[in-house]
Amino acid sequence: MIEYDGTPFNGWQFQSEGQPSVQAAIERALARLEPGVPRIAAAGRTDAGVHATGQVAHCDLVKDWDAFRLMEALNWHLKPEPVAVVACARVSEDFHARFSAMERRYLFRLVMRRAPVTHDRGRVWQVGHGLDVAAMREGAGHLVGLHDFTTFRSVHCQSKSPVKTLDEIRIEEVAYPNGREVVFRLRARSFLHNQVRSIVGTLERVGAGGWTPGDVKAALEAKDRRACGPVCPPQGLYLTGVRYPDDPFRG
Amino acid sequence: MIEYDGTPFNGWQFQSEGQPSVQAAIERALARLEPGVPRIAAAGRTDAGVHATGQVAHCDLVKDWDAFRLMEALNWHLKPEPVAVVACARVSEDFHARFSAMERRYLFRLVMRRAPVTHDRGRVWQVGHGLDVAAMREGAGHLVGLHDFTTFRSVHCQSKSPVKTLDEIRIEEVAYPNGREVVFRLRARSFLHNQVRSIVGTLERVGAGGWTPGDVKAALEAKDRRACGPVCPPQGLYLTGVRYPDDPFRG
Repeated sequence: MIEYDGTPFNGWQFQSEGQPSVQAAIERALARLEPGVPRIAAAGRTDAGVHATGQVAHCDLVKDWDAFRLMEALNWHLKPEPVAVVACARVSEDFHARFSAMERRYLFRLVMRRAPVTHDRGRVWQVGHGLDVAAMREGAGHLVGLHDFTTFRSVHCQSKSPVKTLDEIRIEEVAYPNGREVVFRLRARSFLHNQVRSIVGTLERVGAGGWTPGDVKAALEAKDRRACGPVCPPQGLYLTGVRYPDDPFRG
Repeated sequence: MIEYDGTPFNGWQFQSEGQPSVQAAIERALARLEPGVPRIAAAGRTDAGVHATGQVAHCDLVKDWDAFRLMEALNWHLKPEPVAVVACARVSEDFHARFSAMERRYLFRLVMRRAPVTHDRGRVWQVGHGLDVAAMREGAGHLVGLHDFTTFRSVHCQSKSPVKTLDEIRIEEVAYPNGREVVFRLRARSFLHNQVRSIVGTLERVGAGGWTPGDVKAALEAKDRRACGPVCPPQGLYLTGVRYPDDPFRG
């Protein structure tokens, strides 16, 4: 299980030499332990600026590593990158971090205050106005369940089908130093490209009063990318967890 | 009221040109609004690397500024420094941010986990072992009240007397991504130099089992700086609030 601050990276995925990616950082650390280690695969290919506290990736190693010692060794070689391996576990031959995943969980942090944030720059999305959380919850309610999410996916999305089941959107307002924060928690088997940011950006419009909750329903039913609200910036988004049939990190 | 990330600064206090300080950053922004504005004074002169969410400073301005517009203008000129003015208020002539203060509140964040923190680098103190919070609370209990805090102040402390009343130390264990966090909240009319970091560093030893809670009492009663536990690093420390007889930010 992997945690990272996405700020300095062009996303999870290795793209080319010289483009910083979380994948390349971890593969470099792995190569210090076992030269020639194959590419690693992750549960969620997070975009540039997106963070994780519960990313999962797997790799095939030759040596018979103790899980704790492997974690410590990887964290040693990952320094000074803002990437940490927070748990390691041995998995069965047929485990695949991406294809075995039954559920992904994302969290989005949206801070409401006028004064610029100082401690959480690059880690939250900030707006200067208040938001009607009850209206946002009502709008979000239209999105839960099995739907064609064409409106809420990037035109670059490579998923075969836009039909997905969104299991939950939980929206909570919590304290934030000198302001308030709205925390979104989304849960689904899998997400389309930019789906979370498209949903949060649209719900922000509902909270600000520019859209009604019913407009979200109409946008969904339009099945048209042009019906989507603005896609919100990446820096408030966190991949917080992935669920597998047999949780490799439990027991 | 001022919030800042203390990481890039040599503390609140202006020391010399070329030494970054929070005070200098704010004075530069003020000078953009009123050239020749006098020095500002703050409630707490935080050390290098120490943060604030509720610092208070006052200054004398010539123009009749609207409080909200002044805040907005200062934040504009403070960019890109990690310093934000979160509230402004007009005060009476006899108000002094430092000398009128009746209470300061500090918070200290101590994270327990093996893997290096990624999102909160420079914003928490991290230890790799577990801590016995009940024992820390018992040790802290010996420090609450009116005492001679010679053991818990820096040899460079300029306060006239080491006798202070510590009104409260609250210690809570809270969730932290992939770990646990101990949050200390301290409250007093005023603190000695390095007092919070001397106390937290000592209590960490109690939590780790190296000291008994009774050792804290013995250290206090020794009234000897050499009896103090290790002074903990600055990056977990936040000045969170200052209380005045008439709260200038309320009403």
